Amino acid sequence: MLDPFFKPQGVAVIGASRNPHKLGYGIVRNLKEYRYQGGIYPVNKSATEILDLHCYESVAEVPDPVDLAIVIVPAPVVSKIIKECGQRGIKHAIVISGGFSESGEEGEKLEEDLVSVAEEWDVNFIGPNCIGTIDTHTPVNTTFVAGMPESGEIGFCSQSGAMVASVIDWARGAGVGFSRIVSLGNQVDVNETQMIEALHEDDQTKVITAYIEGVSNGKEFMKVAQKAAEDKPVVALKGGRGESGARAVASHTGALAGSAEAYGAAFERSGILQAGTMEEMFDWARALAWQPLPKGKNVAVLTNAGGPAILAVDALEKAGMQLAELTAETKKYLESRLPKAASVSNPVDVLAGSGPGTYAVALDALLTDETVDSVVVIQAPQDWFLPASLAEVVGEVAGSHDKPVIASIMGKASVDEALNILHKRKIPNVAFPERVASVLKAMVKRKEWLDIPQQTPEQFTDFNEQKVQKSAAEKDWKSLLVEYGIAFPPEQFAENKAETVTVAESIGYPVVLKLVSESVSHKTEVDGVKLDIRSKDEVTAAWNKIKEAAELADVDMEGVQVQKMLTGGQEVIMGLRRDPQFGPMVLFGTGGTDVELLQDVESAIAPLNRLQAENLVDATRAGIKMKGWRNQPPADRETVITYLMRLSQLGNDLSNIDELEMNPLYVLSKGQGAYAVDVRGTLVEDEKVVVQD
Amino acid sequence: MLDPFFKPQGVAVIGASRNPHKLGYGIVRNLKEYRYQGGIYPVNKSATEILDLHCYESVAEVPDPVDLAIVIVPAPVVSKIIKECGQRGIKHAIVISGGFSESGEEGEKLEEDLVSVAEEWDVNFIGPNCIGTIDTHTPVNTTFVAGMPESGEIGFCSQSGAMVASVIDWARGAGVGFSRIVSLGNQVDVNETQMIEALHEDDQTKVITAYIEGVSNGKEFMKVAQKAAEDKPVVALKGGRGESGARAVASHTGALAGSAEAYGAAFERSGILQAGTMEEMFDWARALAWQPLPKGKNVAVLTNAGGPAILAVDALEKAGMQLAELTAETKKYLESRLPKAASVSNPVDVLAGSGPGTYAVALDALLTDETVDSVVVIQAPQDWFLPASLAEVVGEVAGSHDKPVIASIMGKASVDEALNILHKRKIPNVAFPERVASVLKAMVKRKEWLDIPQQTPEQFTDFNEQKVQKSAAEKDWKSLLVEYGIAFPPEQFAENKAETVTVAESIGYPVVLKLVSESVSHKTEVDGVKLDIRSKDEVTAAWNKIKEAAELADVDMEGVQVQKMLTGGQEVIMGLRRDPQFGPMVLFGTGGTDVELLQDVESAIAPLNRLQAENLVDATRAGIKMKGWRNQPPADRETVITYLMRLSQLGNDLSNIDELEMNPLYVLSKGQGAYAVDVRGTLVEDEKVVVQD
Repeated sequence: MLDPFFKPQGVAVIGASRNPHKLGYGIVRNLKEYRYQGGIYPVNKSATEILDLHCYESVAEVPDPVDLAIVIVPAPVVSKIIKECGQRGIKHAIVISGGFSESGEEGEKLEEDLVSVAEEWDVNFIGPNCIGTIDTHTPVNTTFVAGMPESGEIGFCSQSGAMVASVIDWARGAGVGFSRIVSLGNQVDVNETQMIEALHEDDQTKVITAYIEGVSNGKEFMKVAQKAAEDKPVVALKGGRGESGARAVASHTGALAGSAEAYGAAFERSGILQAGTMEEMFDWARALAWQPLPKGKNVAVLTNAGGPAILAVDALEKAGMQLAELTAETKKYLESRLPKAASVSNPVDVLAGSGPGTYAVALDALLTDETVDSVVVIQAPQDWFLPASLAEVVGEVAGSHDKPVIASIMGKASVDEALNILHKRKIPNVAFPERVASVLKAMVKRKEWLDIPQQTPEQFTDFNEQKVQKSAAEKDWKSLLVEYGIAFPPEQFAENKAETVTVAESIGYPVVLKLVSESVSHKTEVDGVKLDIRSKDEVTAAWNKIKEAAELADVDMEGVQVQKMLTGGQEVIMGLRRDPQFGPMVLFGTGGTDVELLQDVESAIAPLNRLQAENLVDATRAGIKMKGWRNQPPADRETVITYLMRLSQLGNDLSNIDELEMNPLYVLSKGQGAYAVDVRGTLVEDEKVVVQD
Repeated sequence: MLDPFFKPQGVAVIGASRNPHKLGYGIVRNLKEYRYQGGIYPVNKSATEILDLHCYESVAEVPDPVDLAIVIVPAPVVSKIIKECGQRGIKHAIVISGGFSESGEEGEKLEEDLVSVAEEWDVNFIGPNCIGTIDTHTPVNTTFVAGMPESGEIGFCSQSGAMVASVIDWARGAGVGFSRIVSLGNQVDVNETQMIEALHEDDQTKVITAYIEGVSNGKEFMKVAQKAAEDKPVVALKGGRGESGARAVASHTGALAGSAEAYGAAFERSGILQAGTMEEMFDWARALAWQPLPKGKNVAVLTNAGGPAILAVDALEKAGMQLAELTAETKKYLESRLPKAASVSNPVDVLAGSGPGTYAVALDALLTDETVDSVVVIQAPQDWFLPASLAEVVGEVAGSHDKPVIASIMGKASVDEALNILHKRKIPNVAFPERVASVLKAMVKRKEWLDIPQQTPEQFTDFNEQKVQKSAAEKDWKSLLVEYGIAFPPEQFAENKAETVTVAESIGYPVVLKLVSESVSHKTEVDGVKLDIRSKDEVTAAWNKIKEAAELADVDMEGVQVQKMLTGGQEVIMGLRRDPQFGPMVLFGTGGTDVELLQDVESAIAPLNRLQAENLVDATRAGIKMKGWRNQPPADRETVITYLMRLSQLGNDLSNIDELEMNPLYVLSKGQGAYAVDVRGTLVEDEKVVVQD
């Protein structure tokens, strides 16, 4: 459907100009200069020729074949032009013009107009307020930006035009090829999700990269991106991760909200690799486009100098990679081939006196070694052999194996030729050896994601639909969770002191007393919880203290909840939080009163299958502890996993729940179960926090 | 003392060669080509002329003045040459030759020889196994590496020759100037500490940078580096931070050990900024050399595009910087000058249509604004004005204010001229806007370090020296700590069940019972601790359980320690650990059985003054919690600070203590004190862990 944007039969440029300082000139120049083979039809009433091309008075006059219009006229005229395009049978347009929703109220009206005209005349369009598109294979360049990257395998779409311009410039300087580059602009029609789909369908694109500030529809985005990621790597850079950044995004594009955590969890789920910086995004993209994925985390480092190898090793270790052991055969072989003082353990140091021949021998041996999943080749500057010759050698030897090789031919002034050769040979090079670590980590991460069996989440049905609806409507969180199979410790409400004693004796010591009051959220903040009560006397004392604390804090005391106290368990937090973009997220981590302090809570998009629930648990320190820590026996992980799956289904089943949090959830030892002790929740558009114990 | 290495009166090159493929040729070439103004005296028996310079048969023949020898002869001949130098009155040498300790036993012997000959003849030397030195201001280039950086303000010394070669190459390509560059080689004579001192004394060097794998003497290094850092910024990149990296360092240089943590703490204390990567080191160095320090963390971002600004803002926020608020006046002024749709809040977006004139006006306004401590200027690629003109404008406007400005003129192909101008104007530029964050963070960190008043640590004298020595010798950790003013809860040993009951009743409930046994380290691992015992019956039950557990674990039970149980306090860990390089380090953090899991322990080099102790506490989550968290009252921070200072003195006083650890140390609420509950310790060269409660 988006094909005519990238492989048009003919292109009309409405608003073409003879003035070299106008964008309408740059567009015609780029179409021509970068060898677009179809018809180029400048449209401009007051000119007869632009850059030796015949100029047309109106769209209607443009001859066949033509299926793409590039519109660069003042904002108030754009709708009219789109209508003319529709009438002429041009069903695809790129609206470069600015002055729409990004520039205030007036522009917003013009944009609404544009949308309805385009719908009426069935014109698909990219923009407005964008800088165009490039397909290096067609080739076609609809931008006004000087320069065009070489043909390549990386597709890039961006919600920032500036980022497109800088990527074009960077790609030219660095000699990195691209397949397609797309500036999405205000994306009132064609959006990032459709563009990712288009890049997915494009055979020339081997890796999809995207600069994303927000998505149009979280769930749809995840579906499309995951489908794409199953076939080819998708790397995204998210703008607006911090608080100030998010505010800036809102004022930049007015993009729909969605928390940075939710984006992280959504990317994770869909198999999108989230880069931290632009540099990282394109380091990764080159490696993913050019090299096979490593089978595992074992890296061999081949170097002619110790220092740079050490920096690479430090960075690799920090990124969770490990140094391959190397077999005895490999070491023996290297010993017989390398200089006497060389290091034949990993990192393998051929020493400064070794040239491309020695590198070739050593690289071949390392790539053959079964303990090696990938190889990093470092060359510190030297001036007794041509760096380009090493580039040729690495390219050739790597090409005859099926393991990834990343190069770091260091330096700047002396190595340009070598970098060109490496890029031609499809060996990614980074100027500083530390950068190899994040590249290999991204590759391993993709490999692991691809290896996850795609189980459908289990569908639980062992609950009463009516009860569920009623409990949710009444914010009776406990009943709701019990219905979904989550257990609570025995407990009972008591209205006065005497009743409390009776109830405590019947439940059995030790017990916990908790203040019951409509108006209190964090009970510990008014000292409304008394733990580990072991006798009648202690019950009385605790009641008095709670009463006193409630009076002090000036809150109504309706009574206390008497609860069986659980001992020897591990306190975790488990909950749901609804993201405006990606829907319900399940969160899990170390619980208790220090939750915010410990910052050990991770989240994942609902629903969760078993593996996803396990991964969520394992990503937290709480999860590590649950496997048995010091003298503590392993906790009942199985129950926790089941709860997470059930809770994730609850989040999907009930769209009116905004937040639901069990803290603590008491996890007893293996086989003994887990018990929710405290639950808080809110319904969507429900400002007031409702407490229940 | 090291002056002749950088400002020699005349240079003899022993081992000079006419063969362009030999290092001995490259050295003579570099001396000549890079305009060394003193006499250059090649020494080679079999040549009469090298590169049009007269060649001498031996060192003895070289005419005056000459005070530096560059030695590039086979390793076995080096000692003889050094002797000849000494005899000739040349007291400084750079030994380029390899084949010494780095290459095995034979080389080690040669190195020992070299050291004793040099001592005998009083010759100071850099190397062996190095690639020489550069002083761009003299100028003199004693390396054989092709190319020479421009004159500049950055001094660099390195324990890796490869790093020197790559920095030379990078500097040439990036147009960054250096003052001095030094390859230290095996540094058996001149070492990294002396070199940092020499760079400190050099007026041309405004910033010291160093690649360090190990230091020769930790305490001396700290002293010299701190003195240097008080005058000029010192930035270090530490090689061998991870486990594998540290192993590689050991095999690379055989450098003395010292943990990565200790290096971090030593750098922190001495005011050395620790960079994470080479790129970061030189990003920081340029900014620190060229720009004033910011007064604080408030950054204004000035941009012509939203996306790149958002990425910069994300990175700034992550680095702990914040966006300046901007005064109402500034906003009003910008509103009157910038295009209508521009953003006049921070980040200030002048929009793609604005050129260098608009940037000038906005930059001047931002630098004038009192809420702004520093400004980041971003330019996304455009092609309607010369990027170089923006570079001129930024340079000029920044020059008339005293706040730091960091630029990110993005792109590669189109901006070379602009970068040259920025570098000439001393405005650091980074190709990707995210990199500004780490630069500004480093500058703020330096500012904060410079602002710390240099208090001398308090010297405590309220203890009995004899008792201290005796306790330490007997590993009576408790007595030792009590002597140093650290409190323990009331406790008493009991040998059998009956005695335990009596003791418990006399101490008063609740109490804790702890297994006493010579052979147990982590008591909780044999279930040897029973907490919160409140009655006679519970004492009996606890005794039985401990007995049972001891039998199960097959350890001798000598009795139990009955201890007053402390309630309502916060469990922290506090300890000493002796580093082989930097001596005693004090550690502090969240305590309890989950210490390793929580990873909330920070360390600092002893001794600590009050501010350093406070900073150590504040760097941990435990410290944040101590200030009062949720319903918990503030803990007795004052006592903890005092303990840390006292403990740090203990570490300095007693050089035979290897490790000493209180976990948990129970910190009660403000004014209530803190009590050590469990102490473990080891003496230096004492393999066995001794436990005491």
